[in-house]
Amino acid sequence: MAACRAQPAFCRGPHTLTVPAELFQENRQRLCERLKGKVPSGAIVLLQGGESQTRYCSDHEPIFRQESYFQWAFGVEEPDFYGAIEVDTGNTILFPPKLPDTYAVWMGKLLTCEDFKERYGVNEAHWSSDIPSILKGRNPAVLLTLKGLNTDSGNYSREAAFDGISQFKVDNEILHPEIMECVKPQTKKIIMKSIRPGVYEYQMESLFKHYCYFTGGMRGEAYTCICGTGDNGSVLHYGHAGAPNSKLVQDGDMCLFDMGCEYYCYTSDITCSFPANGKFTERQKGIYEAVYKSSRAVMAAVKPGVSWVDMHLLADRTHLEELKRLGLVTGDIDEMMKVRLGAVFMPHGLGHFMGLDTHDVGGYPEGTERSKEAGLKSLRTVRTLEQRMVLTIEPGIYFIDVLLDAAFNNPEQARFLVRERIDSHRGFGGVRIEDDIAITQDGMELMTCVPRTVEEIETLMEEGRRQPPMPLPQD
Amino acid sequence: MAACRAQPAFCRGPHTLTVPAELFQENRQRLCERLKGKVPSGAIVLLQGGESQTRYCSDHEPIFRQESYFQWAFGVEEPDFYGAIEVDTGNTILFPPKLPDTYAVWMGKLLTCEDFKERYGVNEAHWSSDIPSILKGRNPAVLLTLKGLNTDSGNYSREAAFDGISQFKVDNEILHPEIMECVKPQTKKIIMKSIRPGVYEYQMESLFKHYCYFTGGMRGEAYTCICGTGDNGSVLHYGHAGAPNSKLVQDGDMCLFDMGCEYYCYTSDITCSFPANGKFTERQKGIYEAVYKSSRAVMAAVKPGVSWVDMHLLADRTHLEELKRLGLVTGDIDEMMKVRLGAVFMPHGLGHFMGLDTHDVGGYPEGTERSKEAGLKSLRTVRTLEQRMVLTIEPGIYFIDVLLDAAFNNPEQARFLVRERIDSHRGFGGVRIEDDIAITQDGMELMTCVPRTVEEIETLMEEGRRQPPMPLPQD
Ligand SMILES: [Mn+2]
Ligand SMILES: [Mn+2]
Repeated sequence: MAACRAQPAFCRGPHTLTVPAELFQENRQRLCERLKGKVPSGAIVLLQGGESQTRYCSDHEPIFRQESYFQWAFGVEEPDFYGAIEVDTGNTILFPPKLPDTYAVWMGKLLTCEDFKERYGVNEAHWSSDIPSILKGRNPAVLLTLKGLNTDSGNYSREAAFDGISQFKVDNEILHPEIMECVKPQTKKIIMKSIRPGVYEYQMESLFKHYCYFTGGMRGEAYTCICGTGDNGSVLHYGHAGAPNSKLVQDGDMCLFDMGCEYYCYTSDITCSFPANGKFTERQKGIYEAVYKSSRAVMAAVKPGVSWVDMHLLADRTHLEELKRLGLVTGDIDEMMKVRLGAVFMPHGLGHFMGLDTHDVGGYPEGTERSKEAGLKSLRTVRTLEQRMVLTIEPGIYFIDVLLDAAFNNPEQARFLVRERIDSHRGFGGVRIEDDIAITQDGMELMTCVPRTVEEIETLMEEGRRQPPMPLPQD
Repeated sequence: MAACRAQPAFCRGPHTLTVPAELFQENRQRLCERLKGKVPSGAIVLLQGGESQTRYCSDHEPIFRQESYFQWAFGVEEPDFYGAIEVDTGNTILFPPKLPDTYAVWMGKLLTCEDFKERYGVNEAHWSSDIPSILKGRNPAVLLTLKGLNTDSGNYSREAAFDGISQFKVDNEILHPEIMECVKPQTKKIIMKSIRPGVYEYQMESLFKHYCYFTGGMRGEAYTCICGTGDNGSVLHYGHAGAPNSKLVQDGDMCLFDMGCEYYCYTSDITCSFPANGKFTERQKGIYEAVYKSSRAVMAAVKPGVSWVDMHLLADRTHLEELKRLGLVTGDIDEMMKVRLGAVFMPHGLGHFMGLDTHDVGGYPEGTERSKEAGLKSLRTVRTLEQRMVLTIEPGIYFIDVLLDAAFNNPEQARFLVRERIDSHRGFGGVRIEDDIAITQDGMELMTCVPRTVEEIETLMEEGRRQPPMPLPQD
């Protein structure tokens, strides 16, 4: 058996990705380059990592997941750290918590500061209790802390704080926009496997998570798995506590599986849509290929300088053209676009930045504004594309009763809808095709590797059907 | 395919346990019986359920897990509920949150109050925004809210709060001790499967979780899996973020796997210890059988009226007798007991209440006190056993360097230790045998069903070895 490559690096066995600590050093360098000239000489960035937590009042500790900015800057796996970066030199200091000696019985050999310095490839490490004295010794012109709005959640990032911070000059404004510009993820591939009528949706969630962890060393999930079959495919955030992937998959169901794993806090976000029984009906094929067409139209159009809002509108337009071809809508496409008819079928945004969070930061920097129009208001970014941006492209067409009802009640929209054809699609669910891409100098790189055409999907599923079926506890 | 039994009940398919809503009704009745006479006529219990949360400043929502007291009383699967119980009548009111209509697009069809009433088998349901007016209409003599110390974490349970609560008389003291007395779990079995040298510890964690979810519909884990092999078996809380089950299992390793799943918030907590290659060495057998002996000695002794502290001491004494037989300690057992020598080998408590939390509440009711002595101070309860109590019995022997070093440096303890024999066990790891039991009228019921004797374990593992090996991505 081969071994992981030498430390400092993150690795879960030779079959998994090795992430060298230099990645984080490069991240810090990029940040320092951006900050130089904008902050006084002698400035120090100070970040606080995620804290260990317990569930409600109990002593149950969920598996720790590092705060994303801190992960980006330091790649630290444990809770309760601080980290500092001297902007002028890039000199990096980690501040691990000093645990009581007795913790060794429960947690194993306690690492020393020297151990942590080696483990994470930083210049220095000191206990977090020494933050005030260590920082005092550096005589910083200013401490740059992180405070900024997350435009997906509406929450603010938590600013670093420690006893004695009042002795220092603190600037909590400049760091957030600069670090947002720097956060730039890498990603990985995942694979979808066999399904049959007669399994429960959650059994596919279980299989997916097991595959990712067993085969890829991925302990975390990027987000709650969405395993919507039949009409559940039209519930955009299906899989939540009130609808926990508990339906039995039926013959004839269309499936919409949106599942992503996480490796060392790097996320993926991929949706596959396919027929439960392995063979598209004509109707399923029609809707699927409409979405496939818009997905590939957007992929052909993205490159630096292109507006993401225009890409959303391109997907809308493609959907409407295809739905017209299929006889579900009728009339002039430009007129449909004016009344935002596309949002009836795709109420969510076309895609989002992705990285250390599934919905990564930086979508609405200062000077940008969220649209108030249907569909467009759900966009997680309105930016002009730049090289190195990582996004999802995830057009979809859904048959959502409340939205269809509202459209039929809106004369401006109803005049384009072919009621009988649309009503016959109620209960269909939905189709979403979600890929992860990186913007390159003159286009994009596709990072997702799953079967996408109707033919590719049917071929793969046919192969799966030639293997002995997975034993099911319910049979 | 068979279906789940009719609502109101929790079920994840016919192969999984059906938990009828009557269970929670019985729980509430038991609580009301205890409260009657201690509270004025017209008192109303008011509990607040767990709230939906996001990770740090992002919009990532971890899978919701209900707060345990709320689960015990109402069995509600979704976040942001309140629940009220009229003590005189048992009349039960749920207060779900009123979600904006637009959420239907993201979450699916929004349930009405009538739906929730049916779903959870309660008498009434009203939106949580109507709590003040609904409660006002009942003119409660007092609202009983929950506020109490969790003695495992040192945290207080969060008291129910809503806008307008100041209009009511509130008592936050009486409910906590009464509800603690009522919380009484049911439980289930889990099964451990195949392992080989050459797998990673985390691959067994993955396999376990997959088995529980795929086969048993258990989405949650009771606690972070401890998959300690070799020396890691001596790290009591191995598996945490800084030691995430990432070691490669070696031929000759002893394994200590402490893993529990959760079904509808009911937890299990089971530890199995076994040799990685399926065959105990003489040394492994010696330590294993010492722990097995203490486990069964405790099982033979527990019944109503017995002190849990005495059970801990019984396990200690059995360990010391066996270690003496094995030549690791020498001298008079009573003298060893006086200097707490047992705690060198078993620094944790013998076991704990278990139910909706792995470490369930009620360990230290008023009038009880935590010991300051080694080992005993780690006990999560010091109570006298009563019928219907559910506990773990989990004796263990570990070779923990820091504790052995301390014992050798303590002349009172060192005189019993046979240095050469003990040093030769360094790196062994540890053995823990953890079973889940319920105290019955005259003894106990064993709820765990796993192979336990050396022979049973070797037979099962031999069977596993006759099957084709699991393909490993690292091979
Ligand atoms: Mn997405
Ligand atoms: Mn336990």
